[in-house]
Amino acid sequence: MIVNYQGLIKKIKGTSVPKPLSGTLSGHAAGEPFDKHVYAAIRNQFPKNTFRQYEYLNDLYSKNPDIIGFDARQELFNSPTVLFMLSRGKNATDKWSTENPFEEKQNDTADILVVKDKFYELIDIKTRNISKSAQPPNIISAYKLAQLCAKMLDNKEFDNFTINYFEIDWLLENDKLSCQNAHFGCLFNANPTDLYINWAAAMQIQFHVCDLDQTFKSEREEWSREYLKHFVTQAKRRADDMITKFVKPFEKYIK
Amino acid sequence: MIVNYQGLIKKIKGTSVPKPLSGTLSGHAAGEPFDKHVYAAIRNQFPKNTFRQYEYLNDLYSKNPDIIGFDARQELFNSPTVLFMLSRGKNATDKWSTENPFEEKQNDTADILVVKDKFYELIDIKTRNISKSAQPPNIISAYKLAQLCAKMLDNKEFDNFTINYFEIDWLLENDKLSCQNAHFGCLFNANPTDLYINWAAAMQIQFHVCDLDQTFKSEREEWSREYLKHFVTQAKRRADDMITKFVKPFEKYIK
Repeated sequence: MIVNYQGLIKKIKGTSVPKPLSGTLSGHAAGEPFDKHVYAAIRNQFPKNTFRQYEYLNDLYSKNPDIIGFDARQELFNSPTVLFMLSRGKNATDKWSTENPFEEKQNDTADILVVKDKFYELIDIKTRNISKSAQPPNIISAYKLAQLCAKMLDNKEFDNFTINYFEIDWLLENDKLSCQNAHFGCLFNANPTDLYINWAAAMQIQFHVCDLDQTFKSEREEWSREYLKHFVTQAKRRADDMITKFVKPFEKYIK
Repeated sequence: MIVNYQGLIKKIKGTSVPKPLSGTLSGHAAGEPFDKHVYAAIRNQFPKNTFRQYEYLNDLYSKNPDIIGFDARQELFNSPTVLFMLSRGKNATDKWSTENPFEEKQNDTADILVVKDKFYELIDIKTRNISKSAQPPNIISAYKLAQLCAKMLDNKEFDNFTINYFEIDWLLENDKLSCQNAHFGCLFNANPTDLYINWAAAMQIQFHVCDLDQTFKSEREEWSREYLKHFVTQAKRRADDMITKFVKPFEKYIK
């Protein structure tokens, strides 16, 4: 890992950001200033290595102005696995130019990307209003993660990237959002078998970063296989549950 | 039906509302002023019969101050089907009091409720920025609709309510949102077999109101059975698709 998260927690804890102007303090928008705050702190430490995901792509494609079109631009990534996580779709990539760069997209994999010595550290910021009890947030699509694991295994790429989560617990104090605590978790240090997949919520894996166990000690290859086993088991169970819940109770109404 | 929708379309078309202050014009928030605009127009026509869903509940429970608790309050509805659509959960209903009334909830079934002579007209407002092409919006949970159909059939209640959708097509003009067109559709006049269920998006039925066919002519009982047949067929297909998409491709990685 590149970023020192214990240092980052110390730096962020106790700080505050202005309350967003737009009405409600619920949901995504409220914590957004903290996201920028963390980005600034990391960028301060690694000014040449810290990007927004779309910034990284804009930077990569700008530095290679002769490489044009989806296929050629795909080749710019030194890793099929990283390519899978970071690149945009064919149509958007074909249309990319310095006059028509990428903008931020809500379902990009990472909020922040730190790239150093061909190692990619993906960081997702999760902000949380601790005055309310809320369901665990969406982390990543369980299917996307399954595809990622398959790519790691296909390409034997286990060491060139990681996916980290950083949670900021805030409270509204004197018209400011004040950071009470912060937590760090690495996806691949969590036991893959314990990851909760919410099939009804677009197959999202959901957890609070502060609750993520970090006890998995084996290699990434092992993690990938265990996750795929878990995903397949859960998918089968969900398919069975769908029959139980959505087919059986309604059969009596159908002649 | 109580509301004259052709009259409403004439009244709304060409009107404009202030652009919301908060940043982006994407998504739910942008069209919200139009929702209030339509509500005011209907309420103007039926001042004693027009409610927000939560207002109706607050009104009903306030008028019956001696009826306390979930079970007793459930009895206030003269219809199990309407009860299913409109009431809140046990915990929230138990806690309800004039000092602790319900507030608006994002996943309430209806935006507007018109109640007259024990007939309930549920109206959902869908606003649409026609300068962008967007996916059809979430209409109602396909599962909730299946449960509703089962309730109608169990209780032989086919004539005491309807569910209508009203679409407002707007454009940003001179810092205002201007209504270019409006469309009306009744869920139960649509062919149930054609309703698209997006299983990945929380099982939501999705359509643009302007595209909703209105050619179904048979009785509501027939509609309910045909919808349930469609829902069960689609649920079975989705369960099969899950095995094809989420199990089969990953089996080779699992020893």
